[in-house]
Amino acid sequence: MTARKLAAEALGTGLLVAAVVGSGIMADGLTDDVALALLANTIATGAALIMLITIFAPASGAHFNPIVTTVFALRREISPGLAARFIVVQCLGGILGVWVAHAMFGLPILQTSTHIRTGAGQWVAEAVASFGLILAILGAINAKANVAAMVAAYITAAYWFTASTSFANPAVALARSLTDTFSGIRPQDVPGFVGAEVIGALAALVLAGWLFSGRVPKPETVSA
Amino acid sequence: MTARKLAAEALGTGLLVAAVVGSGIMADGLTDDVALALLANTIATGAALIMLITIFAPASGAHFNPIVTTVFALRREISPGLAARFIVVQCLGGILGVWVAHAMFGLPILQTSTHIRTGAGQWVAEAVASFGLILAILGAINAKANVAAMVAAYITAAYWFTASTSFANPAVALARSLTDTFSGIRPQDVPGFVGAEVIGALAALVLAGWLFSGRVPKPETVSA
Amino acid sequence: MTARKLAAEALGTGLLVAAVVGSGIMADGLTDDVALALLANTIATGAALIMLITIFAPASGAHFNPIVTTVFALRREISPGLAARFIVVQCLGGILGVWVAHAMFGLPILQTSTHIRTGAGQWVAEAVASFGLILAILGAINAKANVAAMVAAYITAAYWFTASTSFANPAVALARSLTDTFSGIRPQDVPGFVGAEVIGALAALVLAGWLFSGRVPKPETVSA
Amino acid sequence: MTARKLAAEALGTGLLVAAVVGSGIMADGLTDDVALALLANTIATGAALIMLITIFAPASGAHFNPIVTTVFALRREISPGLAARFIVVQCLGGILGVWVAHAMFGLPILQTSTHIRTGAGQWVAEAVASFGLILAILGAINAKANVAAMVAAYITAAYWFTASTSFANPAVALARSLTDTFSGIRPQDVPGFVGAEVIGALAALVLAGWLFSGRVPKPETVSA
Repeated sequence: MTARKLAAEALGTGLLVAAVVGSGIMADGLTDDVALALLANTIATGAALIMLITIFAPASGAHFNPIVTTVFALRREISPGLAARFIVVQCLGGILGVWVAHAMFGLPILQTSTHIRTGAGQWVAEAVASFGLILAILGAINAKANVAAMVAAYITAAYWFTASTSFANPAVALARSLTDTFSGIRPQDVPGFVGAEVIGALAALVLAGWLFSGRVPKPETVSA
Repeated sequence: MTARKLAAEALGTGLLVAAVVGSGIMADGLTDDVALALLANTIATGAALIMLITIFAPASGAHFNPIVTTVFALRREISPGLAARFIVVQCLGGILGVWVAHAMFGLPILQTSTHIRTGAGQWVAEAVASFGLILAILGAINAKANVAAMVAAYITAAYWFTASTSFANPAVALARSLTDTFSGIRPQDVPGFVGAEVIGALAALVLAGWLFSGRVPKPETVSA
Repeated sequence: MTARKLAAEALGTGLLVAAVVGSGIMADGLTDDVALALLANTIATGAALIMLITIFAPASGAHFNPIVTTVFALRREISPGLAARFIVVQCLGGILGVWVAHAMFGLPILQTSTHIRTGAGQWVAEAVASFGLILAILGAINAKANVAAMVAAYITAAYWFTASTSFANPAVALARSLTDTFSGIRPQDVPGFVGAEVIGALAALVLAGWLFSGRVPKPETVSA
Repeated sequence: MTARKLAAEALGTGLLVAAVVGSGIMADGLTDDVALALLANTIATGAALIMLITIFAPASGAHFNPIVTTVFALRREISPGLAARFIVVQCLGGILGVWVAHAMFGLPILQTSTHIRTGAGQWVAEAVASFGLILAILGAINAKANVAAMVAAYITAAYWFTASTSFANPAVALARSLTDTFSGIRPQDVPGFVGAEVIGALAALVLAGWLFSGRVPKPETVSA
C-alpha cells in the first residue's frame, strides 16, 4: 500500500532529522566543548537510526535518504515513479522534523543556517561518507547481516572520521539548511554536498556490484 | 501468576528509577559539565533499560510504564483490572527506587524536587517523546525485532533530542518529583508532563494501528 | 577438563581486572574531569566483559567472580570442590591482572591502595550492585537471552547508579586493593565490600528462585 | 576469486585506517581534553570495525591485519602465498587510508609522524593488546559468536587498558607512521611495535590451541 510506504518514509526521515537537529541544540546548549557536543550528537543519531530503520523497514524499506532510494532504483528494486515520490516525502518529512525540533526547544520555527560548509575537503569528505554508507548497506544485505545496526555503526564512525561530519543524505542536508543551530548548513552549500553525495553513492554502487556479487535478497528484507 | 507479575513490574520500575536517579547524582557530583553529566545519565539509563526489559519480559511483559500498560490495555492485550494494578505497583516501585538511590549516596531519603520543568516547549517535547516510545515498541513488535534493544536505543536518542530529556513515563515522572537532584522535576510540573505523555502515546497508538497493521504477536512475546 | 576450566577463570578474571585497572590509569592520566575518566573506565569495562564472557563461556562458564561461582554452587550447578578452586584462581588471576596493568603503564608492580571506600552508603551500594548482577545473570538465563550482553549492560549502568561504582566481585575487590591508582580500594575496606556483596547476591538468589522459576537451562549454556 | 579478496582486504584496511586517523584529527581539533579525544577516537574505531568486518567477511574473511593473516596461515586456513599477498595489500590499503584522511581534512597528504611511542611499557602493552586480539578472534570462532562484534568490543576496551592504545596491527602501525596527527607513531618506533605484536599474537595462538580446542569452523565463516 503506497500511502503507508510514503508515510513511513516521511515519518522516519522526520524523526531522524528531529533527532539530529534536536540533539545538536541540546548538546550545544549544555557544554562549551565542541567535541563533547558532537559526541552526544553522534550517540543520539546512531541510536535513532537503529530504532527507526528497524521499525520502518517492514513498511517501506526504511530508506530515509534520496541517495539510498536512487541506488535501489538503479538496481531496479524500486520503480522510478515510487522512487521519485519517496524522495519528495523524504525532503518534506525532513523539513517537518527540523520544525518539530525548533518547537520543542522554544526556538523560532523558521530559520536559515549561516553555518559555512564548503570547499574541496568537505566535498571529498561527503563523497567518502556517502560511498561508505552505500557500501555498508549493500555489504550488509550481501552478508545477510542486520542492516539497521550496520548503518548506525557506520554513521557513528563517519560523524568523526569525515571532515564534514557525514551528512551523506540530500534530504537531511536540505532540512538542516533550515536551522541556524549546531547541525545547520548554509542553503548555498547544500548543492555542493548533494553533488558529492551522489558521486560517492554511484561509485559505491558500481564497486559493490563487483565486490558483493551473487547473493542479493529481495528489497522487502533489506532491513529485517 | 499475578503476584509474580506485580513483583516484576515493581522491581523493574524501581531498579530503572534507581538507575536514572542514581546515575544523575553520581554524574552531577563528578563534573561541572552538564552535557557530560547527561551523557553518563543517558548511557546508564540505556544500559539499565535493555537489561531490565530483557530479564523481566518473561515475567510481566516488562512495561515499567503506565502509558505502555494503558496502550496494551486499549489493545485488549491486558485486562483493565490487571492494568490498574500494574500502574499502582509501577508508581510504588518507582518511589522505592528513588529512596534506594538516596540511601546509596548518603542523601536524605525524603526529598521534593525544585527543578522547574514546565511550558509549551517541554510539553511538546514530552508528547513527542512518548509518541516515539510507543511507536518504537509497537514497531519493534511488528518487525519481530528485539523490543528491549529498540526501547533502549530510542530512550538513548530521546534524552538528547527532546527538550525535556524524555521522561515519557508517568510513574518515573512521579518518582522523580521526590528527588531534589540532577534528574528531579517539581511536583507541580508532573501533571503537565503526564498529560502530554498520554496525548503522545494515544497518537502513536492510533498511527501504529494503521502503519503496522496485520501482524501483531501475543503480549507474552513483547520483549522476547 | 578441569585444568582448562581453571585456566579460563584465571585468564578471564586477569584480563577483566587488567581492563578495569588499566583503563582507570589511562583515563585518570589524560583528564582532570573525574566523570570523563569514569565514563572511559565504564566503556572499557563493559566492552571487556562482553568479549571475555563470550569467549570463555564454553570453557568454564565465565564466572570470573566468587559470588557468581557461589550462587551456582548453591544452585548445585557446580560442585563445591570445583567452586572452591574457581574462587582461588579468580583471586590469583585478578592479582596478576593488576600487575600486568602496572607493567604496561611503567608503574611499580607492587602497590597498596589508599583509596577510602567505606561507610553505610557504600555498603548499601555494593549490596544493591551485587543483587542486580545476580538478578541480571539468572534473569538472562531464564529469558534465554545473551548473558554476556546483559552482564555488560548491567555493569555499565551500575558503575554510575551505585555510589560504590559497583565492584560487585570479591576477587576484583581484592585485586583492586593492590593498586594505588584510579580504581583502587584500601585493603582494610575490602571485607566490608565482600560482606555486602555476599548479602546482595544471596538476596538475589532467593528472589530469582521465585521470580524466574521453572525454566533453567544447564550451566554449560550459561553464557552462550 | 583472488582479486576480489585482495580488493576487500585493501579497501577494508584503508577504510579502517581512515576512520582511526580521521577521527583522531577531528577529535583533536575540537577539544583540549585528551581523554575526550581518545573517547571519540575509540567509539569511531569500534563502530567502523564492526561494520567493516561484517560486510567484508564474506569476501575475504576481513582480516585487515597482518598478524591475523599470519595466525590463519599458521593454522593452515589460508595458503602462505595468499597470506603474503593479503599482507601487502593491507599495508598499501592502510597507507591510502591515511592519505584519504589527510585529503578530507585539508592537510598535506605526505607526512611523517613525530609522535614518540617506545620503551618497555609500550612493548608489553602491544604484546598484551595483540595477545588479546587473537584470543578474542579465536575464542569467538570457537564460541560460534559474532566475531565482528567481539573484535570491536575488544579494541574498544584495549584503546584504554593498554598503555599503547592498542595498535595491535602492523599494517595500521605502518600507515599511522605517515600522519603527524593525533594517532601517529614515529617511523623508527614501528619495528618495536611490530615485534611486540608478533610475539603477543603467537602466544595467543599457542594458548588458544589448547584452551579452545576441538571445534574450529572453516575460515569462510570467520566473521559471519
